[in-house]
Amino acid sequence: MNKILITGAAGFTGVKACAYFLEEGYEVYGMVHKSTFKEDKIKFVSCDLMNSEEVETVIKDIQPHYLLHLAGQNHSGISWEKPLQTFMVNANGTLNLLEAVRLHSPHAKIIVVGSVIDYNPCSLAKPNHPYGLSKYVQTLLSSSWSSLYDLNIMIARPSNLIGPGPSNGICSLLAKKIVMNEKNLTSEGFHFHNLLDQRDFLDVRDAIRAYQSIFKYGRKNKSYNIASGNNRTILEVLKAYKEFSSSDLEVTTDLFQRQEPIRVDTKEIKMLGWKPQHTFHESILETLNFHRGEVS
Amino acid sequence: MNKILITGAAGFTGVKACAYFLEEGYEVYGMVHKSTFKEDKIKFVSCDLMNSEEVETVIKDIQPHYLLHLAGQNHSGISWEKPLQTFMVNANGTLNLLEAVRLHSPHAKIIVVGSVIDYNPCSLAKPNHPYGLSKYVQTLLSSSWSSLYDLNIMIARPSNLIGPGPSNGICSLLAKKIVMNEKNLTSEGFHFHNLLDQRDFLDVRDAIRAYQSIFKYGRKNKSYNIASGNNRTILEVLKAYKEFSSSDLEVTTDLFQRQEPIRVDTKEIKMLGWKPQHTFHESILETLNFHRGEVS
Repeated sequence: MNKILITGAAGFTGVKACAYFLEEGYEVYGMVHKSTFKEDKIKFVSCDLMNSEEVETVIKDIQPHYLLHLAGQNHSGISWEKPLQTFMVNANGTLNLLEAVRLHSPHAKIIVVGSVIDYNPCSLAKPNHPYGLSKYVQTLLSSSWSSLYDLNIMIARPSNLIGPGPSNGICSLLAKKIVMNEKNLTSEGFHFHNLLDQRDFLDVRDAIRAYQSIFKYGRKNKSYNIASGNNRTILEVLKAYKEFSSSDLEVTTDLFQRQEPIRVDTKEIKMLGWKPQHTFHESILETLNFHRGEVS
Repeated sequence: MNKILITGAAGFTGVKACAYFLEEGYEVYGMVHKSTFKEDKIKFVSCDLMNSEEVETVIKDIQPHYLLHLAGQNHSGISWEKPLQTFMVNANGTLNLLEAVRLHSPHAKIIVVGSVIDYNPCSLAKPNHPYGLSKYVQTLLSSSWSSLYDLNIMIARPSNLIGPGPSNGICSLLAKKIVMNEKNLTSEGFHFHNLLDQRDFLDVRDAIRAYQSIFKYGRKNKSYNIASGNNRTILEVLKAYKEFSSSDLEVTTDLFQRQEPIRVDTKEIKMLGWKPQHTFHESILETLNFHRGEVS
């Protein structure tokens, strides 16, 4: 049996990752913190990543073959309110995990999930927010622990993940508002800073399949960008939703300013045989349908 | 009155820094942890840098105008035994301090003391030890907190500090052994890996004067290398001690391999009007005399 431990198991990606790896035949352990999320066949463990002793006990008990580290404080806005906590959770929480693996399960394959838009001080830029800094340090620690202790750590850098499920991403927030509008629950509109802001959106289920490819074929201490390769403006997202909804949601914007496209090099993950399976319009429709089932 | 808070006040540099700034007319607060070190006219506060609430209380109470952050786990060997603790003390301990200053004393001038031999991931090198990584993250956090929150943080990167006083540096350990040999307290020799290893040695009192220059004239979010500019092999250190001692200490070595000289660019600190005042031979003699007074 292949034991996989997934942190942040109650989160947007976590819930789906648990279900996916269960389906793929893994013995799935989900690490949660302050969550009562339950699911048959998944073994949940409650653990505070900030508590190194608790983390050590969990890793010692489970001794996972695979560790998918999704947990973290992933909101740049909150990082301005809680910069210290953001750093502690993202950097130290990760280090507590890596150190526990080093001590008790050193042959495990580990994926630390960063972000394709990490701040990088090597470019002499300044961090945009404490969140960006915390994610950079997280990947630096991961790569350093891999080289210092010869651990099987790989870094995944997904772009903006979308799809059905509760998420704080822009596509999900927008779908929720559209559905509330469809059901006449609000007449409130949606405001954007710049309708021409661009993102690379990828279905969360495609990202999870990419994580599996990395577990199977990925190389130690290597980073893998995971993205669709397509840039879309917020305006294009709105148009996609319009195809599936007759909502007359009012949308306002401060700016209408074309941005430089985000170029994400996905050569490395494609070399592992991965490519996206969900089209953008499928993801958008499913996101909408998810919220249609939720909002009442 | 100019209030200065010095962390690591019971350490090799700390003790001398407290005395120096007192002499210069500052109101000196020394932060210590698990130390009973006492000195007239210096106000000692006990504080665990890992405890963010304790740190916040100290900074809120004192509201220092200057903060000289010397404390840390500064031993690369110990970092292999305690990698997590080394990271926590050096990175998070510093962050706790910076965050407390941001909240309660935002106009303070802060010097974070790194090391001239910091590991730098921008060069694509790998860290040599968990200590090097922790010091890199310490300076990254310092520079990021300065730019994110417009704080007056400066980074000092001293080379190998020497001089009278209890230190775990190579010159001090060697002086102690020489003195024990002079007093016939041991016949044990001293073993080196490579007698031609090179260091840039600087008197600790010169470094402290450099810190004062940085407080006075340094620029926000800037790094200052502090070094003598002279490379010396271990063999040259031994020869210097021989000039002042008739000890016949036996010295062995694995290697006799000439190294690339360490080039430290000290232009920036010199532009602040600083230059070393103690010659290498003075420092060596005083180190020897210190241990002559200590060893019995």
